[in-house]
Amino acid sequence: MSNRFLRKAQPSAIVEKLVAKAVLERNLINNEDRILIAVSGGKDSTVLAWALSAIRPEIKKTYELAALHISSDFCACCKKAILSKRLDEWGISFTDLFVPIIHRLKEGRQMNCYWCSTQRRAELLKYATENHFNKIALGHHLDDIIETFFMNMTGKGQLSTMPILLHYHNYPVSLIRPLAYLEERELIACAAEKGILKAACTCPYGLKSVRREIRARIADFTGNSGAVKRRILAAIDAGNLLEQ
Amino acid sequence: MSNRFLRKAQPSAIVEKLVAKAVLERNLINNEDRILIAVSGGKDSTVLAWALSAIRPEIKKTYELAALHISSDFCACCKKAILSKRLDEWGISFTDLFVPIIHRLKEGRQMNCYWCSTQRRAELLKYATENHFNKIALGHHLDDIIETFFMNMTGKGQLSTMPILLHYHNYPVSLIRPLAYLEERELIACAAEKGILKAACTCPYGLKSVRREIRARIADFTGNSGAVKRRILAAIDAGNLLEQ
Repeated sequence: MSNRFLRKAQPSAIVEKLVAKAVLERNLINNEDRILIAVSGGKDSTVLAWALSAIRPEIKKTYELAALHISSDFCACCKKAILSKRLDEWGISFTDLFVPIIHRLKEGRQMNCYWCSTQRRAELLKYATENHFNKIALGHHLDDIIETFFMNMTGKGQLSTMPILLHYHNYPVSLIRPLAYLEERELIACAAEKGILKAACTCPYGLKSVRREIRARIADFTGNSGAVKRRILAAIDAGNLLEQ
Repeated sequence: MSNRFLRKAQPSAIVEKLVAKAVLERNLINNEDRILIAVSGGKDSTVLAWALSAIRPEIKKTYELAALHISSDFCACCKKAILSKRLDEWGISFTDLFVPIIHRLKEGRQMNCYWCSTQRRAELLKYATENHFNKIALGHHLDDIIETFFMNMTGKGQLSTMPILLHYHNYPVSLIRPLAYLEERELIACAAEKGILKAACTCPYGLKSVRREIRARIADFTGNSGAVKRRILAAIDAGNLLEQ
């Protein structure tokens, strides 16, 4: 991927190129795969759904795509009708699954990101296996992967992050993150080009202050340089942290 | 090491404790070791020499200490007489070895840190093996190790750093870095307490701008927190980067 291409091309062309590159380099998609895309209604997973549909001619594989949205008892804002219509245009079926995330909290426990994400992940895995999907695609991008790396390093004292490809031992399903080569700003530009930003859903608890703070610190540290971020990804990759 | 101890104790007591801790935890020193300390005349290696002498009662090992200073054709400022006298007080013999570092540069090449350090390292290894030392002790500290980690990650795209213990395959010598648990500010405080700072030698080329810039960025990133830096060290350690 030349720097000239990254500077000059349309945002959607950059996303297509870098998703296809990740898919081919990391062997994320094989023929006959049944891929379940976890769609929150947010910009990242919506762009992911579009991109997985758009790269079909480029990657020359045959695979099925479907999208699962998890509705919860604390989010009423989701523009599901718009999301469902968009996915339909891209040839992706849409399912909405209700999970009472707050209701499941034990008495006296506060709602938090960790609880919500483990509940969602469990439901996602259950749905995927019951419906014979062998891949689950998540919308995490390069900045998410780097942030998690720095959070785990400075918080937990571990060199680890979200892998681009994760083989579960207990489920007949693998997790893939096809947006791993893309910076968030590249996804925002693509979402703006495609008119997705106007109706994107955001979490009402979404301050996520630890992640937001580390995000600002990483931006300072890297000078927000895409080249530096990609070298950090290469280092994480050379440390064998991206496939598990 | 309790946080209370780190806040309340004299700087020299902190250095003694943390050097002894590193030596014992990492098994850096064994009975009958002949240890050559690389002394530049700077604060770090001078404090290292003092500490390796001072921890004898605490670590209960018998070992010999000697110091080697490498003089070069570009540094006339070194206070070798003062250094030699100090080392003598701590029971450490002193040798000065002249290496014509600039003279060895090929025609047209500029002096640089990489050239100087590889020349010094080669001479150090040669001297150690010829004089039957089995350990070489270097004065790098926690900030140096973390800086190198971040420089290698963002510059080379590698997860790597200076190891605390390095077994050479080609030489009958190991490298040890007993100051690995100490922040630079803790060493500066100790050097001030012991009156070392007043006559410390610094490199005339010593701007080292890349390292200085990354040092400032890391200070911003970690909020200059010793606890955060030690969790980064723990992460680097869990990634098996500290013993090679």
